[in-house]
Amino acid sequence: MTGESADFWHVMSTARTIRRFTPEPVPDNVIHRCLEAATWAPSGANAQCWRFIVLRSAQQRAVVAQAAAQALAVIEPVYRMARPPADDSSARARSYRAIYDLHDHAGEHPSVLFVQQKLPATTELVLGGSIFPAMQNFLLAARAQGLGACPTSWTSYGGEVLLRDAVGVPDDWLLAGHVMFGWPRGSHGSVRRHSVDQVVDIDHWNGDRTTSLDRASAERQSEHQQR
Amino acid sequence: MTGESADFWHVMSTARTIRRFTPEPVPDNVIHRCLEAATWAPSGANAQCWRFIVLRSAQQRAVVAQAAAQALAVIEPVYRMARPPADDSSARARSYRAIYDLHDHAGEHPSVLFVQQKLPATTELVLGGSIFPAMQNFLLAARAQGLGACPTSWTSYGGEVLLRDAVGVPDDWLLAGHVMFGWPRGSHGSVRRHSVDQVVDIDHWNGDRTTSLDRASAERQSEHQQR
Repeated sequence: MTGESADFWHVMSTARTIRRFTPEPVPDNVIHRCLEAATWAPSGANAQCWRFIVLRSAQQRAVVAQAAAQALAVIEPVYRMARPPADDSSARARSYRAIYDLHDHAGEHPSVLFVQQKLPATTELVLGGSIFPAMQNFLLAARAQGLGACPTSWTSYGGEVLLRDAVGVPDDWLLAGHVMFGWPRGSHGSVRRHSVDQVVDIDHWNGDRTTSLDRASAERQSEHQQR
Repeated sequence: MTGESADFWHVMSTARTIRRFTPEPVPDNVIHRCLEAATWAPSGANAQCWRFIVLRSAQQRAVVAQAAAQALAVIEPVYRMARPPADDSSARARSYRAIYDLHDHAGEHPSVLFVQQKLPATTELVLGGSIFPAMQNFLLAARAQGLGACPTSWTSYGGEVLLRDAVGVPDDWLLAGHVMFGWPRGSHGSVRRHSVDQVVDIDHWNGDRTTSLDRASAERQSEHQQR
């Protein structure tokens, strides 16, 4: 399969989020290896109070598509995002088109839910530390096999209720993560990230750095002042 | 370096939690590769609103040791855990000894904090999805280099205040995760986990499974009834 790699550092550094997939089905053994890799992740006290739920029937894919549409309606105003005109070839337009494609075609591909049992006297943040490593292992194992994958936030917003009902997840389990996957249209390039120097501190907090959020806040404040 | 591997599947399946480290220092370039791998992780909207803070000065290691001692005092009653007698060679005693060793020697090794900026209108669980994948990449890159590592919960309990103050982390950033690391005493074996069949469902929730938490609850209930 094109794009397959067993080189650890190559896989890690090229595990880009893929938002467009071909119609070619993903064989069970490929999905199985991703799920097995997910089970290899650490969890608090090695308790493994997790479930990985593959959504692939036409019925469940339709629910995923509905959750995607709801999420899109929520994030469009947040990111001030709209469908770009056909003649816009800017980087932002290309990125937005990929996001719209992911949401528009959500019902055509399989996906997996990462579900974590609630534990007494533990915060949701701490519980996240026991389930998102499994999601990351899944994403990396997908990349190693040449598969494309994209974590979504469709278990938030209105999608949580839809997916919880459709799958039958009990109230004492958290829908923590969700990943769409399929064979990629296009290829896996290197990830684009801030450098180590930009995000690592030694022993003490460096207050002089700015993050994407800081910059967005500053922009909003500046726009507000110009009104 | 012994235990080093660049084979993706071998690294993933042997990334066991290591709780005992040799006194040999970890070179900067080895730490750098772990941190770089952390930056390769996905985050919501690729915003990378994260900081990775290496704690290695004697002063900060002393704070980590204090956080470890506090965490130990909290978890001992939760897990009904006590220091095993010297002649106890059971699996549980060996496991407990490793946990005590980790906490007792916490001040002797470097560690890293995974810190995530709070975002408006986003839950802590969702934010966890933007920082714990980076922690998992760090753990895997440590394993690939033959390094041992152990995620801790010392940023919870009383440790959060101690570490936040010592490092100077602002209130609008979450101390999400913390990892101790060093050269392992002993070797990396295969991880021990439930099989895929035990934790994966297809399309619908299977209510017949039991988790570690279910079993612990059942045991407590049974003990309670016997009183």
